[in-house]
Amino acid sequence: MAPVPNPRYLFLASPAGWPDLSKDFQYDDSRTIDPDTVELNGGFITKTQFLSVDPYMRGRMNAGTFMAWQPGEPWTGFGICEVLRSETPEFQKGDTIYGHLPFEHYTVHCIESAHANMFRVIKNTENIPLSVYLGVAGLPGKTGYYGLKAIGEPKAGESIYVSTAAGVVGTVVCQIAKEWGLRVLGSTGSDEKVKFLQEDVGIDAFNYKTSCVDEAIKDFGGLDIYWDNVGAEMLDTALINMNHRGRIVICGHIAEYNVPDEKKRGIKHTWEMVYKEIRMQGLYVFSYEEQYADEFYATVPKMVAEGKLKYTEDITVGLEHAGELLMSVLKGQNTGKAILQMYP
Amino acid sequence: MAPVPNPRYLFLASPAGWPDLSKDFQYDDSRTIDPDTVELNGGFITKTQFLSVDPYMRGRMNAGTFMAWQPGEPWTGFGICEVLRSETPEFQKGDTIYGHLPFEHYTVHCIESAHANMFRVIKNTENIPLSVYLGVAGLPGKTGYYGLKAIGEPKAGESIYVSTAAGVVGTVVCQIAKEWGLRVLGSTGSDEKVKFLQEDVGIDAFNYKTSCVDEAIKDFGGLDIYWDNVGAEMLDTALINMNHRGRIVICGHIAEYNVPDEKKRGIKHTWEMVYKEIRMQGLYVFSYEEQYADEFYATVPKMVAEGKLKYTEDITVGLEHAGELLMSVLKGQNTGKAILQMYP
Repeated sequence: MAPVPNPRYLFLASPAGWPDLSKDFQYDDSRTIDPDTVELNGGFITKTQFLSVDPYMRGRMNAGTFMAWQPGEPWTGFGICEVLRSETPEFQKGDTIYGHLPFEHYTVHCIESAHANMFRVIKNTENIPLSVYLGVAGLPGKTGYYGLKAIGEPKAGESIYVSTAAGVVGTVVCQIAKEWGLRVLGSTGSDEKVKFLQEDVGIDAFNYKTSCVDEAIKDFGGLDIYWDNVGAEMLDTALINMNHRGRIVICGHIAEYNVPDEKKRGIKHTWEMVYKEIRMQGLYVFSYEEQYADEFYATVPKMVAEGKLKYTEDITVGLEHAGELLMSVLKGQNTGKAILQMYP
Repeated sequence: MAPVPNPRYLFLASPAGWPDLSKDFQYDDSRTIDPDTVELNGGFITKTQFLSVDPYMRGRMNAGTFMAWQPGEPWTGFGICEVLRSETPEFQKGDTIYGHLPFEHYTVHCIESAHANMFRVIKNTENIPLSVYLGVAGLPGKTGYYGLKAIGEPKAGESIYVSTAAGVVGTVVCQIAKEWGLRVLGSTGSDEKVKFLQEDVGIDAFNYKTSCVDEAIKDFGGLDIYWDNVGAEMLDTALINMNHRGRIVICGHIAEYNVPDEKKRGIKHTWEMVYKEIRMQGLYVFSYEEQYADEFYATVPKMVAEGKLKYTEDITVGLEHAGELLMSVLKGQNTGKAILQMYP
């Protein structure tokens, strides 16, 4: 095989507010690679099939943050790739791998980087679409499953309110909570998504843009668990509606990623936490991987195959569209899990 | 014994702002009682020795609040009393009891009210002053001990920052944390109190009114535990200085009690909680009584007797001065734990 293009999607600079597509990122198609002959040095080469595009990536653009993207280097994120050639028995030609990948077509890995990047061979005995391993059966699914279990500590009969409930993490949380016997309320930003939540996911739901959030929660009843994907006023409103010993899972703060400190509204009701003994805890999904991953892979793909865990996907084809796709994710314009499919 | 006076200190009406001593309270010495002959109906009679006067009592003057004082009835609060006669084996003549008491000299109790009011016999084998059982060995001490243990989950070698460290709860937290091998930083509002913390309590301390809190914490190093008595900007500044998996004990929000919502600054860094997996939890001391009371009484009075737990008291003699004492507590004019001693 002659050398083929090996395009990549670069991160150039940390934006102050919203990323600027024309300055902060760059699609670079200047490189080539020969997958058949490139030196593997005991490692293996993969061809990436799908990459996940997620809101948390905005955080990784901030210098100094954990796992910050490096200027001049490709974006990184979770993806699905196929092993083309291998010099290590751990990963073999034809294996489908889930793991943390650079945004490029072909990548040569050493075994250490494969471990560091949490590579896991996906057997897919349930025969679900591979892209789902980036959604409800991937990191967003793990986020919902691990966070609900470890921080939410749900008990059947309890109530949970999930913000951005129609998002990938949100739908997982809602559906697993429902499966585990909780009463579930979700909010989302369009009537169409409200309908999706009510009819497809089968939970109580409201449009936070056209309803009074405080009233909607009060109509539903006090909250034992609040799943926070939003922060700011939404978190503050949930806080005043928590039941005694309520738990708040801080998963995301989509309302505040692009707001400078001086303009942030702030959480004003932390005092409520005292008498009600409310607990609020940040969720970092990777901390629970060892504890829950096997249970997750034994449970969730099966739920998907059985139709118990519904999902929607928003697939964009072509690495060159990574930036636009992320912007639409950050602006909440897409529906379902945003997936970048590398090739038509 | 002939009947003796049984004075009480009455709550008359809910004040709108500052209580008015001449209208809202009344010292009533019109009643008498014969402690030797009064009917006990299977209960017991006590003579009160010390009563605790605390800022939280202002809240109990508001109608409809939790444990609100009732107009025309005596104030209630935690105190120390002695059993004079008893018809129940649970409490015997000569026992010293800690519990929730009406502000009056003599009280007849049934066994149910004793349980409801958390009565506990104080053995005082350490022979410390009984009034201390209302301070560092009483509710403020329990607040520090239970909160540090249950929510702070301290480990030797970790670091803790305590706001209002020179207050009764603060000094307990600082000294117990030090005893348990933590590095302790405290803040307070005067150079005199900073000196007290440095020299008497033996911890690192700074004056938050004349220092940059963020710099002071950064000089000390990242925080594994933050004990929050303040809320608002102090909480926000601690939040950005927490270590991974740090714990924040929300105990009080003294900066915000009298600030209307629209003027509150708000906590702007809850996002920090995610990557750092920070946990923030409200402390309601009574929830841990069953779990930790025995351990507390086995530990804290001993620490006091051994000089490992220092304290300051502000003792006022005479039930008729209850109102004035509370006013000075509410205005922050006293130093140390405010105690009402019933008799000279």
